[in-house]
Amino acid sequence: MISAIIGTNRPGKVDVDALLSINTGLARRIIVGFIRDALRKVGAGKAVIGLSGGIDSALSAFLTAEAIGPENLLAVRMPYRTSSPDSLADAQAVIDQLGLPALTIPITPMVEPLIEQFPDMSDKRKGNIMARQRMIVLYDQSAAWNGLVIGTSNKTEALLGYTTLFGDSAAALQPIEDLYKTQVRQLSAALGMPESVQRKPPSADLWAGQTDEGELGYTYAEVDRVLYLLVEGRYAVDEVVEQGYARPFVERVWRTVRLNHFKRTMPNVAKLSRRSIGHDFLYLRDWAG
Amino acid sequence: MISAIIGTNRPGKVDVDALLSINTGLARRIIVGFIRDALRKVGAGKAVIGLSGGIDSALSAFLTAEAIGPENLLAVRMPYRTSSPDSLADAQAVIDQLGLPALTIPITPMVEPLIEQFPDMSDKRKGNIMARQRMIVLYDQSAAWNGLVIGTSNKTEALLGYTTLFGDSAAALQPIEDLYKTQVRQLSAALGMPESVQRKPPSADLWAGQTDEGELGYTYAEVDRVLYLLVEGRYAVDEVVEQGYARPFVERVWRTVRLNHFKRTMPNVAKLSRRSIGHDFLYLRDWAG
Repeated sequence: MISAIIGTNRPGKVDVDALLSINTGLARRIIVGFIRDALRKVGAGKAVIGLSGGIDSALSAFLTAEAIGPENLLAVRMPYRTSSPDSLADAQAVIDQLGLPALTIPITPMVEPLIEQFPDMSDKRKGNIMARQRMIVLYDQSAAWNGLVIGTSNKTEALLGYTTLFGDSAAALQPIEDLYKTQVRQLSAALGMPESVQRKPPSADLWAGQTDEGELGYTYAEVDRVLYLLVEGRYAVDEVVEQGYARPFVERVWRTVRLNHFKRTMPNVAKLSRRSIGHDFLYLRDWAG
Repeated sequence: MISAIIGTNRPGKVDVDALLSINTGLARRIIVGFIRDALRKVGAGKAVIGLSGGIDSALSAFLTAEAIGPENLLAVRMPYRTSSPDSLADAQAVIDQLGLPALTIPITPMVEPLIEQFPDMSDKRKGNIMARQRMIVLYDQSAAWNGLVIGTSNKTEALLGYTTLFGDSAAALQPIEDLYKTQVRQLSAALGMPESVQRKPPSADLWAGQTDEGELGYTYAEVDRVLYLLVEGRYAVDEVVEQGYARPFVERVWRTVRLNHFKRTMPNVAKLSRRSIGHDFLYLRDWAG
């Protein structure tokens, strides 16, 4: 749907930005239909989402509200004590614009008892604890509200593994995980998301001044072009380099995609029987036969 | 390896207990080799495991200690304030017998702040919060100890979905997930596990007197026979009933297996591109090519 086919003849310079450009109206219809269908299949009419104040969760909320009605989508804000007040305000702007029922459940009292036990704990460990604590709160609200947890991962972060396993990547369905970050921006603009959400630098908001692009060392616009050629175009690393991208950058991106593949699959099972889970006991997720 | 083939001719009465009987020496070698191989592939020499005092985590610890050496396996005990003192003692018996480095990190101070906010919270919600909190502690220790998290799920509970998603089922690898509970018992006996661990009634240990079999409403011995015929034997429900099992029980078991299938797969992704994660972007978990 999204792109023309990149042929095997490898034309000169590929205009990747043009290929990354999506038909926002079609993407919106497909995703809204996907959410509606996924919920109907399990007999659920409601959903829960964690709103960080960022663009990914905001877009996922817009699409889910359109699919099932805003009154059926519970928005949960889960600040930590160092979270930016802007994040809370941006999440509130989404709640207000869509008219969502909402809860605010700070995670500080739940994560501090663990963090305090290990005074030399790295920021990375702290960030993973926070992301997983938010999963706990969200899944608990899923039980209380009787709704499915809507994932907010995009394709760029899923490919780079720039997520916390069993944390922000934990969800019942993933509506925008097939959209690169730059495509998330296109669709968000088309849906009329609050300006402040659209314009702010992406951040995990774990400490003041943290930004995704600062941590990653490259911009989403740059990495999306390389990922697109590698993944959608099935270009080899050498072929991407021939397109004018720096070899160390391309090699680093592809290595990151490979090393984080474990986050995108179920754990391996030691095979002992003729029908092992994940090997030969395979059904669709919504298997009902 | 484990069973003779159940033919399609459907002989009279199948001796399922005989089919569930495993070659413990062979199972042990396969699983130990699996663990060693899984760790070596990712360059890890160490592992972390949560010891509940129950037979599944004890068996997983025995096999992992054999695979990588006990000094490389960190055992973590994570009691809640209502956990039985016997559980801590049974876990300690495993730690002592194997000679494992060990930590005890109570989860009470981390889970109470959430539980206290919702006075009408069900026991099921509380149990899920505890199981997920243990995952957080274990994955944090995984980062600190630089070792992989060893799963402790068996095939019976994985098929029945008698686990907490992103909680006790969360792990880097699953060494015993292809062994039914009755087979876990056979292998544990063969490995010389502490008697008290072998003999105690299986329990999630969330409140005093809780047992798995009391909650499920049937014994593991009973359900394993039915699961074996349905899953390994590919018997239809009617055919299992012809083997002498009560129809409501067989129907209930098969329905439970189906309804919990979502716990055994990755979440669905709304498909928009030609290479979507989990659809056409598929590699082995330890993809390294």
